[in-house]
Amino acid sequence: MKQNSASVLERIRNSRPLILCLSNSVVQPFTANMLLAVDAIPAMLNDASEAEDILDGVAEALLINIGTLSEEQSVVMRRAVIAAQKSQTPWVLDPVAVGLLKFRTEFCKELLTYKPCLIRGNPSEIMILAGEQSITRGPESTAGSNEALDAAIKLAKAQHCTVLVTGEVDYITDGNCVYSSSHGRAIMTRVTGVGCAMGALAAACVVSADSPLEGAIACAHILGLAAEFAEKKSTGVGSFACSLLDELDSMDSESLLQSARIEQIII
Amino acid sequence: MKQNSASVLERIRNSRPLILCLSNSVVQPFTANMLLAVDAIPAMLNDASEAEDILDGVAEALLINIGTLSEEQSVVMRRAVIAAQKSQTPWVLDPVAVGLLKFRTEFCKELLTYKPCLIRGNPSEIMILAGEQSITRGPESTAGSNEALDAAIKLAKAQHCTVLVTGEVDYITDGNCVYSSSHGRAIMTRVTGVGCAMGALAAACVVSADSPLEGAIACAHILGLAAEFAEKKSTGVGSFACSLLDELDSMDSESLLQSARIEQIII
Amino acid sequence: MKQNSASVLERIRNSRPLILCLSNSVVQPFTANMLLAVDAIPAMLNDASEAEDILDGVAEALLINIGTLSEEQSVVMRRAVIAAQKSQTPWVLDPVAVGLLKFRTEFCKELLTYKPCLIRGNPSEIMILAGEQSITRGPESTAGSNEALDAAIKLAKAQHCTVLVTGEVDYITDGNCVYSSSHGRAIMTRVTGVGCAMGALAAACVVSADSPLEGAIACAHILGLAAEFAEKKSTGVGSFACSLLDELDSMDSESLLQSARIEQIII
Repeated sequence: MKQNSASVLERIRNSRPLILCLSNSVVQPFTANMLLAVDAIPAMLNDASEAEDILDGVAEALLINIGTLSEEQSVVMRRAVIAAQKSQTPWVLDPVAVGLLKFRTEFCKELLTYKPCLIRGNPSEIMILAGEQSITRGPESTAGSNEALDAAIKLAKAQHCTVLVTGEVDYITDGNCVYSSSHGRAIMTRVTGVGCAMGALAAACVVSADSPLEGAIACAHILGLAAEFAEKKSTGVGSFACSLLDELDSMDSESLLQSARIEQIII
Repeated sequence: MKQNSASVLERIRNSRPLILCLSNSVVQPFTANMLLAVDAIPAMLNDASEAEDILDGVAEALLINIGTLSEEQSVVMRRAVIAAQKSQTPWVLDPVAVGLLKFRTEFCKELLTYKPCLIRGNPSEIMILAGEQSITRGPESTAGSNEALDAAIKLAKAQHCTVLVTGEVDYITDGNCVYSSSHGRAIMTRVTGVGCAMGALAAACVVSADSPLEGAIACAHILGLAAEFAEKKSTGVGSFACSLLDELDSMDSESLLQSARIEQIII
Repeated sequence: MKQNSASVLERIRNSRPLILCLSNSVVQPFTANMLLAVDAIPAMLNDASEAEDILDGVAEALLINIGTLSEEQSVVMRRAVIAAQKSQTPWVLDPVAVGLLKFRTEFCKELLTYKPCLIRGNPSEIMILAGEQSITRGPESTAGSNEALDAAIKLAKAQHCTVLVTGEVDYITDGNCVYSSSHGRAIMTRVTGVGCAMGALAAACVVSADSPLEGAIACAHILGLAAEFAEKKSTGVGSFACSLLDELDSMDSESLLQSARIEQIII
């Protein structure tokens, strides 16, 4: 597993996967910049027919992030996931604030029927999708990631997909295996878009790995380690956002091999 | 009044108010980051029913910024301010470029009937809302804030709200009392979103103060002082935007107490 | 030609042209910040009637960037270019990913009938608009700018406009004369919005120059030189984005006169 992140990152840099990001309007610039920092190619658009065009052989993966969902965007997203299914393009779901608001909660349930290969969420979001109770503070989770581990396994089994729960420790599971990544810094939650951009990075990792599970592990490792480096060089949330992109830009196999706190968890 | 800003900032950091920002698309990332820098929680969305849901007991305050108003967004905003009124959630109006363009000018007049607790604007915007003549250069004011002081008092009295006019000196009035905050730097107008994000910060301050007046004074003080610190550490508009978030992140009671050029003005 | 960029920049800083940017949602903040860094005034909006209002004597130039085109936005853009034509306001077309997706490709062809004064694109986009075959990698060009030079001349002649092709070397032509600007750094393509913001900067330059040709040359020179300075001071893509704005902020006549790799090409 130690080699995994290094080889995923290398494959991204070499093959430059094009990721269609249908994401929320707040995080679009940061998401695009995070993908560019690892040499993936972001594509963002607002028209359903264009989404279908680009998913017909051009985009390697799709990210759906419902953070600022509107009726219009839900139409684009629905047609996009159908197109992704048709062209067997893997897609990642980021169910921002699911459970808190009715419209997106219903839409999320519908989206699950189109079979994402990976769901990335905070503990509350994963618990809600797994059918459990959870409380949130708006878009923020009040539960710890360890509290959501059972929910993550349950959700992965029910949806036949991989689940990445982010928190102090990130957990990744396909329902059979569970891995933890003890990388990352709390400051990541104090910059808008870091979590959302992680969904896009996860999509790039998934298409550059042997399985969604390995892609999601690499994603947590790469971003978490970059955040650790970035925090050391920054003097607050503003410079951290800058540094995080710098550190992703210069992230390489050597750094990933030197510091890999990835562990399998026996369940 | 010297203690005011320190206690408002402390309350924000401790209680982490959730601010629903229905704002313009240009400034969403910077607005969210400014709120996160002081430990408030930004929520942004584009659907009217979701706005109503979150204003029913979840959001502590609402910001309405009409900078990129569309028919669709005006529907969301109208339902949001009605919901805010119903749940007695305080809301702040940022009337970007009112008077320059007919659609938003009419909409602003309608919004005023839903009683914002605070209006934050540049001198031209405040003069227009007060029924006076003013000239603008697109979204920028050509009048100084001192020229808008009478208009601010008139507007505050007419609307029974607090008015925050920003400029070289910021003025804050509830129609009875007037305060000035001589903090801030001209470079703030050369980074997109600083003024707009100030509206969101004002909303966080209002719910963490004893009155909208005290909240608005604290807002002008906190942001202005952070801008002074940030300018010293930056080498241009790009690094200033970064540093401003860093300085808000590290802003504390001590700094606010040491430098507080807040004065009451006898009218 | 050496004096050209310096005098264009000086005129922008003095007269502060207001540029209406109908652009894609990903790049709005960076575009606004780039204009502000050279003291131009950005205006962004989403309503057709407001676009018409501001193009009736307020905005000095218009940018149309179709990067995240929607049906709704196409209506606003159509009415905007008609209003621009009526008020003889020059407008710049940035045909992002034209040729890749059907909807925007058809719309671009329609837009050309409203006579942009300048088209800024990457090599693939210019080749497509000139009626040639080209392959793209999503929004990225796989052709070099020198491969698109003939297409640029052909397009400029056919549309009676100026064409700016960006790449390792930027080429600028009005169909009669061709100039190259050997400024800029590859890292510019690894930060989202640099190319798109260049379209807005080009609009500001065009209204501050004696001709669209001279405006486009100045634009390539100013941005390219700023990018060279910025790369030296940055440690990756995140700090580069910051530094680029800083360097545009401090760019002056002296720097432009000292380093001007602008050459006329005999065709």
